[in-house]
Amino acid sequence: MSSCKLTYFNSQALGEAIRLLLHYGKIEFEDIRVDYEKDWPSYPKDTLPLRLLPILEIDGIQLHQSIAICRYLAKIVGLAGTTRLEDYEIDNVVDTVNDFRARLAGAFYEQNTVAKEETLKIIQNETIPLFLGKLEATAQQNNGHLALKRLTWADLYLTGMSRYLIRLVGSDFTANYQNLRKVIENTESTPGIKEWVAIRPDNPY
Amino acid sequence: MSSCKLTYFNSQALGEAIRLLLHYGKIEFEDIRVDYEKDWPSYPKDTLPLRLLPILEIDGIQLHQSIAICRYLAKIVGLAGTTRLEDYEIDNVVDTVNDFRARLAGAFYEQNTVAKEETLKIIQNETIPLFLGKLEATAQQNNGHLALKRLTWADLYLTGMSRYLIRLVGSDFTANYQNLRKVIENTESTPGIKEWVAIRPDNPY
Repeated sequence: MSSCKLTYFNSQALGEAIRLLLHYGKIEFEDIRVDYEKDWPSYPKDTLPLRLLPILEIDGIQLHQSIAICRYLAKIVGLAGTTRLEDYEIDNVVDTVNDFRARLAGAFYEQNTVAKEETLKIIQNETIPLFLGKLEATAQQNNGHLALKRLTWADLYLTGMSRYLIRLVGSDFTANYQNLRKVIENTESTPGIKEWVAIRPDNPY
Repeated sequence: MSSCKLTYFNSQALGEAIRLLLHYGKIEFEDIRVDYEKDWPSYPKDTLPLRLLPILEIDGIQLHQSIAICRYLAKIVGLAGTTRLEDYEIDNVVDTVNDFRARLAGAFYEQNTVAKEETLKIIQNETIPLFLGKLEATAQQNNGHLALKRLTWADLYLTGMSRYLIRLVGSDFTANYQNLRKVIENTESTPGIKEWVAIRPDNPY
């Protein structure tokens, strides 16, 4: 790669997993951060495929859709599977993390207060125990990873999303899900990533 | 594969792309259909990884997460890309179709009438033209396909989902998006798929 440029908000959320993959692979990139309050309202959104961030530009090619970008980078940096079934296992858990995020976000960003209250009840009583219980069991079976009993891009995906998930859940769920905490700790102590984690902007989510 | 069994509702929605992939690849499978009204309330949901369908069982291994299943099958039947960037291109458009579905579903299944009305306005004025406009342009650039100017699992994904998307949109959007209509027509006239389309249950979505 002769040029690599990530454009995302000044937050971790949907962009941090991409940053983790690039740092893991020691791929130099420009880390352009758009301030949501100050820059985003006047940002030229028509230049974005779906008026959304993140965007990764590699050698002039504009990539969007964060999970598709992560999977692409994972193959480059060696964090994908080595068989079809291994890749399925990673894809499965990534989509499960993303489904969990989407359900939480649906409640979190609900504008209507009555609807929000109803949805939050389901989130607390059903969605959170169901999804975190499933992911915790998966992390336990895989010795502190989310797939293949080794570091894969699924671990980086969860880790990059973790502060945002904590914000959406409303509390630090990793206190009650020790194996998911292990996934995050394992990832953040990985060479390439740990140096980044030590110096990155301390975004709350 | 010595045994292959799909369990899904008696509908197309999130299960039909899997059926299309299996028929395209001439992979024999048991097509188990759960009636949502009659069978689902008493269905043993604890046997399902996230209490959700579809589930595909191959040689005793239980696969879930419909997109991850489709990608896995696509590699087996030869409808994936041949390079990392080709696979990214397919993944990107599949995630875009799925994001569109998720946004539509959020409004469609909203229980609160005030919240529903607000969300439907955004869906009609912003989400539908944005996503269908983008997908239509992609289909035009790719000569009636969604990626790589040839049949890929992205085409089967959209085609399998099309009746369900029409239901969520509330009208047959393919009338105004001729290139997306072409994608569906191209897919449904493909050997292996066309024979299935001719005999499959005529589920409205």
